[in-house]
Amino acid sequence: MDKKVFMQWVQQRHVSIPQLLLAHYTDLRMDEQELVMLLHIQSSLDKGDAFPTPEHLSTRMTLSLDECTSILGQLIKKRLLSLESHLNEEGIVSESYTLEPLWSSLITLLSRWDEKEAKADQK
Amino acid sequence: MDKKVFMQWVQQRHVSIPQLLLAHYTDLRMDEQELVMLLHIQSSLDKGDAFPTPEHLSTRMTLSLDECTSILGQLIKKRLLSLESHLNEEGIVSESYTLEPLWSSLITLLSRWDEKEAKADQK
Amino acid sequence: MDKKVFMQWVQQRHVSIPQLLLAHYTDLRMDEQELVMLLHIQSSLDKGDAFPTPEHLSTRMTLSLDECTSILGQLIKKRLLSLESHLNEEGIVSESYTLEPLWSSLITLLSRWDEKEAKADQK
Amino acid sequence: MDKKVFMQWVQQRHVSIPQLLLAHYTDLRMDEQELVMLLHIQSSLDKGDAFPTPEHLSTRMTLSLDECTSILGQLIKKRLLSLESHLNEEGIVSESYTLEPLWSSLITLLSRWDEKEAKADQK
Repeated sequence: MDKKVFMQWVQQRHVSIPQLLLAHYTDLRMDEQELVMLLHIQSSLDKGDAFPTPEHLSTRMTLSLDECTSILGQLIKKRLLSLESHLNEEGIVSESYTLEPLWSSLITLLSRWDEKEAKADQK
Repeated sequence: MDKKVFMQWVQQRHVSIPQLLLAHYTDLRMDEQELVMLLHIQSSLDKGDAFPTPEHLSTRMTLSLDECTSILGQLIKKRLLSLESHLNEEGIVSESYTLEPLWSSLITLLSRWDEKEAKADQK
Repeated sequence: MDKKVFMQWVQQRHVSIPQLLLAHYTDLRMDEQELVMLLHIQSSLDKGDAFPTPEHLSTRMTLSLDECTSILGQLIKKRLLSLESHLNEEGIVSESYTLEPLWSSLITLLSRWDEKEAKADQK
Repeated sequence: MDKKVFMQWVQQRHVSIPQLLLAHYTDLRMDEQELVMLLHIQSSLDKGDAFPTPEHLSTRMTLSLDECTSILGQLIKKRLLSLESHLNEEGIVSESYTLEPLWSSLITLLSRWDEKEAKADQK
């Protein structure tokens, strides 16, 4: 085995997926393609690229450019992804994705279940 | 926000996905459903459950039991997943999944690309 | 490079340290030896060993058995680590470490800072 | 609990420590302070800051500025850390840390053990 490849492996970053997301993405009405798209977006955010384009996503996924655009739209519509606009000092607007709505939805879901359980225990 | 839910969040495990897998799963002829199935299997292995059943996977994914069985079969056929048999001291056979073929295939791919690049540089 | 070693590398688990812990352990009055001891405990918990002994910790760290016992005591005293007792169905008591007090302290710290900042902004 | 703090928690990055490093840093003649310094450097590299200064490290650790400078020197001397110089297009030189020697040393160690074991098995 090639030492150069091994160093590439050892020095790569890892995307960290919370087990609770993996266990409950279907409860958030997401399918596997949507989940993986969010992982690609997380990976881009980790690398400092806050606005991966549908073109970029399409080269990494089994999906066409149109399918990527459509899934991004669905994720925003389902409130699992959102776009933030930033105005820099020179007055130039830039956009970045945020997964905040995803985490917020997941927490709301877990809290509701926890309340239900607490009520069931009281009976 | 609920403190109990927060503690559940903080104490959960994370599944660590190598960026190189996320970048190259399509080069290994995998689609998003296959990738997520391997993540579920990795997550089970991390928890000490070495043989997640199609039934278990089906409750976590958008796929039916038959679809899970079929994708597991495909992954084994494509040599991205394999089953190992273990004989314990009492003579009972148990089975466990291993992702070794996946990592092996990914490394072979990266090594081949590295060789090609090295040759191209020599010209 | 040795393929067997590479597979050992690729298939190992990772301990995930939250950046907020790395940035603020000194604010929780911990030093580097205490932090690394908690990482070893986290690593044991992840592997399903809920009660790593001072002997085990001592073989993994630069510390003697007495030093390990003493640091474990300090961590419990500082409320960054605690021991839980469990009674199983056969009436046997087992003990396990939990990092819940660590996470709780870190969150309390971050919340206090956030409140201070919010008040400062109101002025 | 404060939603803002929770979102800060959920959206933070994690530093991924390979279990093999945690298990074997003492075999590489490192102590806990040196290990944590390397984790801080890894964390900086992950955030895109390739050259954290001793001043920065000192604010995050229990160590004084002089102690940080001294430990950085030791890590370089022990060949666990190195500095790379880069010349950019405008002819300006910048420096960055790399943990490549750490990973290389760890792998050499594991390979040697593996060889010894293989020889022992042959006898």
